[in-house]
Amino acid sequence: MMNSSSEIAGLETSAVTAAADFRQFAVEARKLVDAALDRVLPAESIPPERVHAAIRWSVFAGGKRFRPILLLAVGETFGAEREPLSDTACALEMIHTYSLIHDDLPSMDDDDLRRGRATCHVRFGEANAILAGDALQTLAFKLIAEDESLSADKRVLLIAEIARASGTPQGMVAGQGCDLEAESREVSAGELEQIHRLKTGALIIAAARCGAIIADASEAELAAITEYGAQLGLLFQITDDLLDVTATAEALGKTPGKDQRAKKATYPALYGVEATRKHLAHAHQSACAALENIARPTELLHAIADFILQRQA
Amino acid sequence: MMNSSSEIAGLETSAVTAAADFRQFAVEARKLVDAALDRVLPAESIPPERVHAAIRWSVFAGGKRFRPILLLAVGETFGAEREPLSDTACALEMIHTYSLIHDDLPSMDDDDLRRGRATCHVRFGEANAILAGDALQTLAFKLIAEDESLSADKRVLLIAEIARASGTPQGMVAGQGCDLEAESREVSAGELEQIHRLKTGALIIAAARCGAIIADASEAELAAITEYGAQLGLLFQITDDLLDVTATAEALGKTPGKDQRAKKATYPALYGVEATRKHLAHAHQSACAALENIARPTELLHAIADFILQRQA
Repeated sequence: MMNSSSEIAGLETSAVTAAADFRQFAVEARKLVDAALDRVLPAESIPPERVHAAIRWSVFAGGKRFRPILLLAVGETFGAEREPLSDTACALEMIHTYSLIHDDLPSMDDDDLRRGRATCHVRFGEANAILAGDALQTLAFKLIAEDESLSADKRVLLIAEIARASGTPQGMVAGQGCDLEAESREVSAGELEQIHRLKTGALIIAAARCGAIIADASEAELAAITEYGAQLGLLFQITDDLLDVTATAEALGKTPGKDQRAKKATYPALYGVEATRKHLAHAHQSACAALENIARPTELLHAIADFILQRQA
Repeated sequence: MMNSSSEIAGLETSAVTAAADFRQFAVEARKLVDAALDRVLPAESIPPERVHAAIRWSVFAGGKRFRPILLLAVGETFGAEREPLSDTACALEMIHTYSLIHDDLPSMDDDDLRRGRATCHVRFGEANAILAGDALQTLAFKLIAEDESLSADKRVLLIAEIARASGTPQGMVAGQGCDLEAESREVSAGELEQIHRLKTGALIIAAARCGAIIADASEAELAAITEYGAQLGLLFQITDDLLDVTATAEALGKTPGKDQRAKKATYPALYGVEATRKHLAHAHQSACAALENIARPTELLHAIADFILQRQA
């Protein structure tokens, strides 16, 4: 998640400072999340060894930890300590990683390369990859259910929130299902946005909302954070689509141009690259506008929106 | 789950009455669970249609609903109403069905036939089958998290219980992982029992325990129910293994002899059929002995143990 300073040239001085603060925050948050994940995931020495090795291979594959960082940033914006945020942050990363493992399978997107190395099924075989994804989902909900730093009332709210956002018909699995169904036919702009909203947006919104819920944000604040998360999700997906067209495999850590070849519904495929950049700018503005409704210091949340706008991988 | 009366010949008169009561109970419980599942599962008319059709295809494939029935029977034994038991019973069936869908996949057990009809991936393709399983797991935890007939404290206990029993290293996914790893080599009796305990036993124990937890059973009662559930799980797995050797495809609704051909670790493969029947009788006795420690009317729970002992499919 670190950028070279040249990549943030062109932002105003205050934004440059905020970006530097965010980079510092992201480095710390990633360390915290990685240490917590290492603590809660089963050891490779315990049977079934290959399933546990497959889990760790994918969880510690150099992911950006975007969702946990977002949750921590929102939580801290609303005054929460890190302790009650940490397990839910890990749970989100586990859900995200399970979805990557299953999406990469031969019968799904059939990807061999992810974050610069072999995908889970290439390294450990399909059966272990399926089980690793299944187990990560289970572990995510278990982690929150057993989190004694949160009241039981909050734990069930968080589990319901993440389950809605990652399941069907309102979440990630629904998005992947609609995406697969759309591969064989023309897709309208409205359908494309709905697929993205489900596939990527829902879990990003959930990350932002979970941070706010843990921090006891007000209903109005939660509404603003939901809109911020929705625009951030859009921003994230559009940059993802653009990078698939413009980036190199080395920068991306996966095979670029794949969406295009698979005739996937993407923004550049539908609007062309230039109009897609305009959609990008609009989503960024809308994310920042949503933050205007929050009477807290939101520099960190602004910096996250800036960071996604500028990301190269 | 209905037996002809000839199949329960040989049991004492009181056991015959209890068996009749149990059949009546099982019919009602199955109706209740099926209606609740139909209510909470996404409609096939909502996108992604094929994922939702795949979910319903597998959930309504004529399953025996053994885990929900067990949960309801234990819950009612300890005095709970049906209302607070119903959603957790459905959640268990959703977890069980997700595991069947994923276990049947070509890279796992590669089964074409289940409960007398095409398995999920044969009917809807692998991608939809993987997503259907994923979504069923998510829906199970969501259902409990949102169950307003239970306190939040109870909901987190139940979610943690089911997550432990269905995940790794202490649950169903661990069992399936160990089973796959064991396919290529000789397996000891101890390993075989451990695989079964994880793969089948853990979720059956969880079903029994969840019923007791919802009904506010005492610690001592919960301990007795845990032992009862463990013996029931063993009984269930041994009869499953035996049926794979002795039953016809028609009675079984799936391809028999498959375990044998796949050199799977099974009781008959390890001990032979006759010694396996002795293990069966011992597990049945142990399940009944565990019930002696419960000062409630346990006829229904006895009848469940009898029923599994006698089952033909």
